[in-house]
Amino acid sequence: MTQVFNFSAGPAMMPREVLEQAQEELLNWQGQHTSVMEVSHRGKLFMELITQAEKDFRTLYHIPDNYKILFLQGGARGQFAAVPMNLIGEKGKALYLTSGHWSATAAKEARLFCEVDEINILSEGAELKVDRLDFSDIADQYDYVHYCPNETISGVEIFDVPKVGNAVLVADMSSNILSREVDINQFGIIYAGAQKNLGPAGITIVIVREDLIGKARKATPSIWNYEVQANSDSMINTPPTFAWYLCSLVFKYLLERGGVKAAEKRNQEKAQLLYDYLDQSDFYHNFVAKNNRSLMNVTFTTGNDELNMKFVSQATEAGLQALKGHKVIGGMRASIYNAMPIEGVKALIAFMEKFAAENR
Amino acid sequence: MTQVFNFSAGPAMMPREVLEQAQEELLNWQGQHTSVMEVSHRGKLFMELITQAEKDFRTLYHIPDNYKILFLQGGARGQFAAVPMNLIGEKGKALYLTSGHWSATAAKEARLFCEVDEINILSEGAELKVDRLDFSDIADQYDYVHYCPNETISGVEIFDVPKVGNAVLVADMSSNILSREVDINQFGIIYAGAQKNLGPAGITIVIVREDLIGKARKATPSIWNYEVQANSDSMINTPPTFAWYLCSLVFKYLLERGGVKAAEKRNQEKAQLLYDYLDQSDFYHNFVAKNNRSLMNVTFTTGNDELNMKFVSQATEAGLQALKGHKVIGGMRASIYNAMPIEGVKALIAFMEKFAAENR
Repeated sequence: MTQVFNFSAGPAMMPREVLEQAQEELLNWQGQHTSVMEVSHRGKLFMELITQAEKDFRTLYHIPDNYKILFLQGGARGQFAAVPMNLIGEKGKALYLTSGHWSATAAKEARLFCEVDEINILSEGAELKVDRLDFSDIADQYDYVHYCPNETISGVEIFDVPKVGNAVLVADMSSNILSREVDINQFGIIYAGAQKNLGPAGITIVIVREDLIGKARKATPSIWNYEVQANSDSMINTPPTFAWYLCSLVFKYLLERGGVKAAEKRNQEKAQLLYDYLDQSDFYHNFVAKNNRSLMNVTFTTGNDELNMKFVSQATEAGLQALKGHKVIGGMRASIYNAMPIEGVKALIAFMEKFAAENR
Repeated sequence: MTQVFNFSAGPAMMPREVLEQAQEELLNWQGQHTSVMEVSHRGKLFMELITQAEKDFRTLYHIPDNYKILFLQGGARGQFAAVPMNLIGEKGKALYLTSGHWSATAAKEARLFCEVDEINILSEGAELKVDRLDFSDIADQYDYVHYCPNETISGVEIFDVPKVGNAVLVADMSSNILSREVDINQFGIIYAGAQKNLGPAGITIVIVREDLIGKARKATPSIWNYEVQANSDSMINTPPTFAWYLCSLVFKYLLERGGVKAAEKRNQEKAQLLYDYLDQSDFYHNFVAKNNRSLMNVTFTTGNDELNMKFVSQATEAGLQALKGHKVIGGMRASIYNAMPIEGVKALIAFMEKFAAENR
């Protein structure tokens, strides 16, 4: 068994071609006879790398010139703290739209730093369904409105952008950044941990509109002060250089394959295939409303814990890795980020058919 | 030219054997046919890795059982903020002993979070010399006393541990951790960015005495709350898994070569060789008092900026990389951390002799 497909929710699989390049040049980057992780982040070659990486990312995601792109440490969880530290001002409070585990966790962390109002936007019912997205009547009361457009645990994705009038909208896009096109102008801040669609764990991208920079409270750690980092090429301290390098390779990889538009098409095809299979099956079930089904994380269950365990175990043996659902909801989860080829989804469906036939 | 020696101050060279192993298993870790950076941090194999890494690090550095070892994000600069957030309590202020750029920067960052008293422990004079290390008469007034035992920019190392009575001593050991044996019991907290002696940039180790855990102010980001992280195996969020993995390989590498005791002996030999050469030279000069000469960062100058530039340029051509001194003080700097073999120092001295002969 050497052909495996890794459905890990994160750290997730990376493009094979990227890892192969990293492997090839691991001990000799740019003819320097040293590793990219051994060179100064302020050296000419590494500075060229980050300049190109920013340019490529800006191109890929159509990021307007009035947005800065920061490459930071601390993960999305770090930004859960950094966002209120940087944005809370005269209004003194923030609105968190919650739709699952991660948006709720972001709200909980924000409460350490400011007053938080929280609105659960999931409807109560058998289906997981997002049922309210217009907050333009109340958003003005808040320094910002935060939401998470893709909840990795439940597999709920929010495709429409919440309406917040002129208020600042902040989005945790850790699990769907670069997966489909978005209109950046609708957001004040977008942030994402890298370990799903961007690169390895350990680097975090923050896209921040320039007018939101410079408002941080005094007690903001320098490494998360958007103004300090924006003025320092995200190098107020030594950055995670190897992770940054891998992100730069992922950006090139995506650009060479048609950018985000093409990635979105591939992601829709993959998800469609899997959801179509689930919908015609009476053996597996998915509980997310059709309009909120994630393109990135597809959750399903047999409805029987023992059978789910057997599924995960036999799938692993068959080279279909990391399909166990998050402990919070159990069942199975197939994370099919940008790097997952359609062959992986087809292999999963073939296995699901076989398993269903053998266990019904 | 393929034999190069990399004297970068950080990100610094790593042991060749570690990088070779990382390269070999980059696409197939532990027979999983996936990269170590693609697997869940909570999976069995990765949990085994971190358990062994902690054990190895504890063994290497003789860390008593009443200390926790945390593996965090954000670099030492992140800890500049995290330390006051976690330690400032009833006394409301901290004492910072400054001996150069990094200790002064730590003090500056701490002022964002608490009152800080600062004492410069470098004597004024032609030589860089640390001249006062007993603060036991005043240390009780502070929640903690902070210092940096190795200043990478000037090449000043403080070998004796400051006396602080029963107060809490905190040390930024980013550039000399694992370089020589220390008595951990003298410290409340030791922290270090990885990119000099531990692994790649992007992971930070914090050694913290258990009684100091649980004192964090409310407005402490969870990823830096020592209590939260100590209770979560340093996994309150997705950790920088690849960096952690590389650290684990470095620990094994050091253990196989006699541990820190043997590393210290090698480091002393390397530094002695270079300082002895500098002392007998009338062409190069080092301005650090003999008792405070760093084993890790050896600074020197020809006394002529143009000649220094020529030196750095010709050294680079000869395969001796990254010898340019920090812009703050100019001149040259050879960083000779654990991973630098003595052959590198010998090659540097041979080049210095040749350059001196050609340019005097």
